[in-house]
Amino acid sequence: MAEIEQAKSSAAAPHPYLPGLHVLLDLFDARGLADQAGIEATLRAAARACGATVLDMRLHQFGQDGGVTGVALLAESHISIHTWPETGFAAVDIFMCGACDSRLAVAPLRDYFAPGRIDIKTIARG
Amino acid sequence: MAEIEQAKSSAAAPHPYLPGLHVLLDLFDARGLADQAGIEATLRAAARACGATVLDMRLHQFGQDGGVTGVALLAESHISIHTWPETGFAAVDIFMCGACDSRLAVAPLRDYFAPGRIDIKTIARG
Repeated sequence: MAEIEQAKSSAAAPHPYLPGLHVLLDLFDARGLADQAGIEATLRAAARACGATVLDMRLHQFGQDGGVTGVALLAESHISIHTWPETGFAAVDIFMCGACDSRLAVAPLRDYFAPGRIDIKTIARG
Repeated sequence: MAEIEQAKSSAAAPHPYLPGLHVLLDLFDARGLADQAGIEATLRAAARACGATVLDMRLHQFGQDGGVTGVALLAESHISIHTWPETGFAAVDIFMCGACDSRLAVAPLRDYFAPGRIDIKTIARG
């Protein structure tokens, strides 16, 4: 908990409104979209790549071989994912405040999902 | 579960990649930011305003009177929130696919948090 408190308070340093970068990834023609265990491991790898602390991880799969929807709640905010295996599409968003750079999550996600095309939007919050 | 399956599959209709609108809200000089119960009720009200189905609700508070970080996982995607009572700031994102319009979540959030200023970005996914 001390670590979490620190993560929140250190985020206050650079700006009165504690901004962070919010990265939206649209992955097209992607793989592994119905593999809940693989997706959970990838979310953990993405958090680790950013030096983020996972508070909670919640995933739901919509039937066997169906899409997966889930979120990693972080001390530094969150990573969410929603997949549609039937069309090869996944929507991921990564929001981190403080010392963590959410852009560092992109590489492990790209490695796992191996998308044919990726659209990345980076939005400053706060 | 049948309802959830339907929500996912009906989202496939308009577009091969199942797009949805992703709304990012930055709330400045906002109220109620350390009230976890009030925030949970507001996330449920926001989901209800969109006709969305809540699958799971996870919230964490960073110490008494501290910030709240949380997510409502929906059959139609998610609503996330991160608050910083010390600066009056909250970052919310709302992503819904299918028949749900994520913009309808804005009114109940605005009513509860009563921000002095609100910045709304709407991004098409997929």
